[in-house]
Amino acid sequence: MDELHNAGRRRILVNTGGLLALSGLGGMARADSAGEKHFKPEDVKPLPEYTDWKHAESMIVHSPNTIELKRDAFGNSVLTPTDRLFVRNNLSPPSAEIVKDPDAWSLEVSGVKNPRSFTVAELKTLGVEALPMVLQCSGNGRAWFPHNPSGTQWTVGAAGCVIFTGVPVKAVLEAVGGMEEGMVYMTSTGGEEIPEGLDPDSVKVERSVPAEAMEHAILAWELNGEPLQLAHGGPLRIVIPGYTGVNSIKYVKQLAFTKEQSSARIQQNSYRFSPVGVSGTPEHDSIWEMPVKSWITAPLDTDGSIKAGRVQITGVAMGGMTAAKSVEVSTDGGKRWHEAKFVGPDLGPYAWRQFVYSADLPAGRYELASRATNDDGDTQPAERAENNRGYINNGWQDHMVTVTVA
Amino acid sequence: MDELHNAGRRRILVNTGGLLALSGLGGMARADSAGEKHFKPEDVKPLPEYTDWKHAESMIVHSPNTIELKRDAFGNSVLTPTDRLFVRNNLSPPSAEIVKDPDAWSLEVSGVKNPRSFTVAELKTLGVEALPMVLQCSGNGRAWFPHNPSGTQWTVGAAGCVIFTGVPVKAVLEAVGGMEEGMVYMTSTGGEEIPEGLDPDSVKVERSVPAEAMEHAILAWELNGEPLQLAHGGPLRIVIPGYTGVNSIKYVKQLAFTKEQSSARIQQNSYRFSPVGVSGTPEHDSIWEMPVKSWITAPLDTDGSIKAGRVQITGVAMGGMTAAKSVEVSTDGGKRWHEAKFVGPDLGPYAWRQFVYSADLPAGRYELASRATNDDGDTQPAERAENNRGYINNGWQDHMVTVTVA
Repeated sequence: MDELHNAGRRRILVNTGGLLALSGLGGMARADSAGEKHFKPEDVKPLPEYTDWKHAESMIVHSPNTIELKRDAFGNSVLTPTDRLFVRNNLSPPSAEIVKDPDAWSLEVSGVKNPRSFTVAELKTLGVEALPMVLQCSGNGRAWFPHNPSGTQWTVGAAGCVIFTGVPVKAVLEAVGGMEEGMVYMTSTGGEEIPEGLDPDSVKVERSVPAEAMEHAILAWELNGEPLQLAHGGPLRIVIPGYTGVNSIKYVKQLAFTKEQSSARIQQNSYRFSPVGVSGTPEHDSIWEMPVKSWITAPLDTDGSIKAGRVQITGVAMGGMTAAKSVEVSTDGGKRWHEAKFVGPDLGPYAWRQFVYSADLPAGRYELASRATNDDGDTQPAERAENNRGYINNGWQDHMVTVTVA
Repeated sequence: MDELHNAGRRRILVNTGGLLALSGLGGMARADSAGEKHFKPEDVKPLPEYTDWKHAESMIVHSPNTIELKRDAFGNSVLTPTDRLFVRNNLSPPSAEIVKDPDAWSLEVSGVKNPRSFTVAELKTLGVEALPMVLQCSGNGRAWFPHNPSGTQWTVGAAGCVIFTGVPVKAVLEAVGGMEEGMVYMTSTGGEEIPEGLDPDSVKVERSVPAEAMEHAILAWELNGEPLQLAHGGPLRIVIPGYTGVNSIKYVKQLAFTKEQSSARIQQNSYRFSPVGVSGTPEHDSIWEMPVKSWITAPLDTDGSIKAGRVQITGVAMGGMTAAKSVEVSTDGGKRWHEAKFVGPDLGPYAWRQFVYSADLPAGRYELASRATNDDGDTQPAERAENNRGYINNGWQDHMVTVTVA
């Protein structure tokens, strides 16, 4: 929701009182949290019901629709356990009824030679692929933007590396005779209910991406080996590897190949890379592909328990649209860099790699930073690219941690 | 427990009454289940407390210490979610107190140049590696042995593919100056309590493997990205990829490089490949390395809902000590074979691959079989290798499923 409404709209919704609860718009970013940079224990909120199976101790509940993984809870096993994966909904999810009989969910496919609907049961007969990939919110890292952009104040935990399993979009396209001539975008529509009395374009979750993204996209019904949960878009989600999370539409009910981008506000105005102080318009770049990025996950400056001697500095590194090729670690705030070693298996170009750099650290204060390079040769920059809504922060300086070794 | 006691001992234990409950020997295989080939709904038992976080609907509880994954619950995302991973303890686990402060757990290392103890916190400073591997009980597939061997009647679900994370044993060996001269075995001892009044050798969980297994073994404190649970051997487990599960000792408290194999019964007599009717002795091969194996996970002959047309036949295939290279699928009980396609990422030689074969099946009755070949060129045999305790069943005939397509 925070991406969908400017301050004016937000005021209107709040002023309509009961509508907030009735319409499922509970996930709206709270204005009073906009300046919150770091998680504070006194801010602990309970997990909302549709995510009550999450590992509460590992999560930061910003709002019912925005739940972050703590920086010390990524583990070193490459994949993010589903019960620790972040949650971010643009609207509150539909009723849990829709995941009771997932095979009955229906997807309408259009902009193709032979438009038709498929139930999930039918999609399952067309093929199966398992796709390891980073799922990351466009606003991950927003907390460090100095102009306090509105929206959830994520630091690093609106990201995870998971395996989605489903049917390749290519296999579905083959079953419907391919795209119609002249289609430029792949447009997916979520199954959230649109509250009565609102202009659908102002709230509906519908995103267009370049049609070629269908090459690697899948329609997923499984996540990390379990039936896809409502919280993550079950019964059916389109997932587009390499793209930010908002493009992977949950509860997908329409998949259309189109000549134009969606007319929804979430496409036209939100998720645009506009200068600070300037609202997004179609003239600004859409937030689609993710850039190279990394961050340290341990040690963190939490309890002052780091002992002098050998310290294993670990983190995650993603390449974006190509694989992470290498990662460097600095213990002096970026003056000198040391090559880190990858930990665990390579799950392909869209997954992240975990890394470790083994350092001998005498007692003292250290600024730990990491800097990834991808297969295209792009290296993570020192500084974030400023933009109005605080998207796509991959600057290594913001992600640095200061630790004291005793 | 079922592996630890012959019929004579089992009678003794049962006759001592209260000892069974007091001593934590609740996991003993029930004699009345020995002939049970398939899971029956009326046999549903609740999950024991230390596993109450498992996904109950996906599990078959044979006993408090033997819990199997249902054949239709493997998913197609390569890895087995931890809440669906089988459980098999040879003794009931120690108190859950030991996982409250996992970093404090202590491991004694001997048979090395500089013997010493390490806390888990100390082990964590020595290195970190993430190891994808199949964890499989030696008795997986026992249910099909026609002579009804004693022990849990597993079909396929005493297996999973997971990522264990910890420190390589090699890094620990380096920290203690390497092995002492002349050591032939790596012997690990579990931290279970030995009930009073019993000869420790008769019950303790201590296994020796060839010392060269240390090349790929790790001391793990994490499983699939989460701190290692008590049910799976937390706070610390030695995991030996390619070897059957019993060799990966839970709650490991001693790691010794030794000239002889352990004197424990679990090493000397149990887990031996002896002819039917002959009890195991050190003259029989120890159950160590796993052979090439595969099985189909869908479709299964469960509810008669398979519709004529395109059917995606899926399964898992493991190579044992080398990677699975290829899998063939048959729909006619092994008369004709078709090359299947791998699904998802290759996680390395010790992981399994999931596979799919897309078949066009008119209405009728089909015998679905799969047959894997590994990088060494070993192909899964048609028939199980008969042995007294029903270990290491990799015959494809036993694993075949008959389905009716309507």
